Amino acid sequence: MSRASTRFDTKKVNSELVTLTYGSLVAQMVKDLENPEDVNKQLERLGYNMGIRLVEDFLAKTGTGRCLDLKDTADKIQSAFRMYLGVQPNVSNWSPAGDEFSFLLDSNPLTDLVELPDDLKSLRYCNIICGAVRGALEMVQLDVQSWIVQDQLKGDSNTEIRVKFIRKLEDAIPAGEE
Amino acid sequence: MSRASTRFDTKKVNSELVTLTYGSLVAQMVKDLENPEDVNKQLERLGYNMGIRLVEDFLAKTGTGRCLDLKDTADKIQSAFRMYLGVQPNVSNWSPAGDEFSFLLDSNPLTDLVELPDDLKSLRYCNIICGAVRGALEMVQLDVQSWIVQDQLKGDSNTEIRVKFIRKLEDAIPAGEE
Repeated sequence: MSRASTRFDTKKVNSELVTLTYGSLVAQMVKDLENPEDVNKQLERLGYNMGIRLVEDFLAKTGTGRCLDLKDTADKIQSAFRMYLGVQPNVSNWSPAGDEFSFLLDSNPLTDLVELPDDLKSLRYCNIICGAVRGALEMVQLDVQSWIVQDQLKGDSNTEIRVKFIRKLEDAIPAGEE
Repeated sequence: MSRASTRFDTKKVNSELVTLTYGSLVAQMVKDLENPEDVNKQLERLGYNMGIRLVEDFLAKTGTGRCLDLKDTADKIQSAFRMYLGVQPNVSNWSPAGDEFSFLLDSNPLTDLVELPDDLKSLRYCNIICGAVRGALEMVQLDVQSWIVQDQLKGDSNTEIRVKFIRKLEDAIPAGEE
């Protein structure tokens, strides 16, 4: 697992802080919303709202230009994972049409030491990542779907986040909450 | 402002991630609980639960020994700030009796770019830090109170977190939730 890149002038904090803060957030939602499906939706929505803000930060810090194609987009999201979460996922499982791919994560700070109780097996704990990918890409005029295919918290060997290209958005979407 | 120490083998993540995750947590609580006073209490309680876990991580990573006195305790919490939040507060404003002191923070990742709306001026946004200090110290048999004296989110030039020693706990407190 790679450390966050040091090429950028970014402030770093300890990953345990994210693990515990994110754990607190999810626990609060589970308590408030009760239904895990509602928590999944809300985590995705929160991630979306974070994504539309993170993408600006990412573009400003990296000075990166327009993506050439979906392959290039995948590579840039891969570096955003490294930059923000300090982990480098593999990009793989491309669909034959080249419109879908996956990020494979060996581990990530959100789930360090996390165990799901039996009554929360339908909780998609890392759904915030799917939302963040969707939000960030919407800001650069790419409409995608993103969802969790494999989940280490459910006993899978990796966490697999799938991304499917839907369409290019012709008009700029104004920044703001969904 | 200093970066997080690199002496320890710790994983780092980007501070924007903490800012946004913590902001999401507080926003969720404000929405659910409505009364800012209830949010303040819950943030303190969450911090307490994080503190009792973080102290174990801190002791394991630093191999630090028993605190000699409250001055030594303050110094160790100062390094925990640096380690987890990537900021180094000043320790100051000692009471004449030596049983109270403050951490002064120029800035911290929790509040980067945060602005409180007018109807949330009673929100103690950083109360999670007070709770974390209290929880961490309880695990090393120190009963303290901690509260926010000055708050940059309310226009003060620093954020000042006050810590008051109450008593030494003679019996070990079992680890667990409050």
